[in-house]
Amino acid sequence: MQTVSQNKSHGGTQGVYRHPSSETKTDMTFSVFVPDHAAGARLPVVTYLSGLTCTHANVTEKGEFRAACAELGLIFVAPDTSPRGEGVPGDPANSYDFGLGAGFYVDATEAPFAQNYRMWSYVTEELPQLIAANFPVDTTRQSILGHSMGGHGALTVALRHPDRYRAASAFAPIVAPSQVPWGNKALAGYLGSNKAAWRRHDAVALIEDGARFSELLVDYGDADNFLNEQLKPELLKAACEKASIPLTLRRQPGYDHSYYFISTFMADHLRWHAARLKK
Amino acid sequence: MQTVSQNKSHGGTQGVYRHPSSETKTDMTFSVFVPDHAAGARLPVVTYLSGLTCTHANVTEKGEFRAACAELGLIFVAPDTSPRGEGVPGDPANSYDFGLGAGFYVDATEAPFAQNYRMWSYVTEELPQLIAANFPVDTTRQSILGHSMGGHGALTVALRHPDRYRAASAFAPIVAPSQVPWGNKALAGYLGSNKAAWRRHDAVALIEDGARFSELLVDYGDADNFLNEQLKPELLKAACEKASIPLTLRRQPGYDHSYYFISTFMADHLRWHAARLKK
Repeated sequence: MQTVSQNKSHGGTQGVYRHPSSETKTDMTFSVFVPDHAAGARLPVVTYLSGLTCTHANVTEKGEFRAACAELGLIFVAPDTSPRGEGVPGDPANSYDFGLGAGFYVDATEAPFAQNYRMWSYVTEELPQLIAANFPVDTTRQSILGHSMGGHGALTVALRHPDRYRAASAFAPIVAPSQVPWGNKALAGYLGSNKAAWRRHDAVALIEDGARFSELLVDYGDADNFLNEQLKPELLKAACEKASIPLTLRRQPGYDHSYYFISTFMADHLRWHAARLKK
Repeated sequence: MQTVSQNKSHGGTQGVYRHPSSETKTDMTFSVFVPDHAAGARLPVVTYLSGLTCTHANVTEKGEFRAACAELGLIFVAPDTSPRGEGVPGDPANSYDFGLGAGFYVDATEAPFAQNYRMWSYVTEELPQLIAANFPVDTTRQSILGHSMGGHGALTVALRHPDRYRAASAFAPIVAPSQVPWGNKALAGYLGSNKAAWRRHDAVALIEDGARFSELLVDYGDADNFLNEQLKPELLKAACEKASIPLTLRRQPGYDHSYYFISTFMADHLRWHAARLKK
């Protein structure tokens, strides 16, 4: 693991790191904020999954998470959204919502993507192990959140690993990719026509199929251009109600899909995570 | 004035606007955050001047000022750092510290810059008038702050307009441009060899020549790469001591010149401004 940059911020260290990933077979870049802490202390760790077109940098620069993480004593990890580099298929000039910047947190089975697009295994296995080996984290106190495509990632990861993550939340998540254009395109492209595989990467379908999580927090803006066609929070609401999963679903008036929205509610989400991570 | 974008954030509106400037004879872009407020209310206004290479966007995205401005009821205005556009001299490919992105908040007198590089008049006259006409500001309650070159701008503007601004502060400012390489290059390029004109754009020289301000707040990081060669806060300290200007000068250990530093202390500066704006 190589240090790309480290900057002191809000009393802690905002770092950017790069490592050769055995999953994606590319170099992967991620950011980690470590707040000031007592020598030898191990801190709870929050993983943030980003949305379409993003890298680690968007939330790192615009997410306004550091003040809250410093106050709450949380380590904040932000991976990239896809493999990148020479020979990796999925030129974003062709499509912003598939390929580079749009890994959708699945392990692709379809050619030519299966070789590199292993973001599920990367964010659930390889990266947490790397973080555990290199940062002062308490691996028994992990949580996950994300935005849009990353909200989809956070929800599906939490639902499939309810014992590993103590809290999960999302900003404007894609809750049912099988039922919306972004998700249909991505799941078909990465997983082919195997609809059973699709259901393992669809929060609503996972809940329908029996997956459970202690409770979920979701915020979305009612001025979000993607709300009705791509996000459909009402599908998550219905699934959670039927499955008796406590869901705090908040419609935020006037907010859109941008980091101006995310940053507004970031501290609130982190406080919600901290309360559950410190139990 | 044309609206480029408006996004709801932290309960208020983060806008970006563009207008044809009579000073620079170019279109100028700036951002304004207006917090939620009672109908008809007029709010204090803080102007933030940015550093070399920046536009309005850097602080707007990375400055972490909105939560504090929402809490404190402050309007936050962020102009660009130079004129831009076809025919404007000063290609940044030649030089990051002169020309585009590096207006130094002076009215240039030298060819070919005199035609467009009128950032002093722009930030002290044209922009405040435009803001007063288009946003719910209380023009009797204004303050100014800035970073690096913009810290130089904030200090010189405050020292030359002590009755207009109720507070002034800076992050890692250039305090004595006449005595450092960045400033020598810029002042010579924009103002020629007229050293009397230089002194009107040099905070330390202005104080030596009799300018006064009620009190100043300056933060800098001791890991700032530009500290010893370009910033020299000790020169401001000496000038303020001699002139009996109260200066709160804070050396922040481990911080560098970046927005990771600025964002850490932004809320603190805004609270300091608010206390003086609301007297």
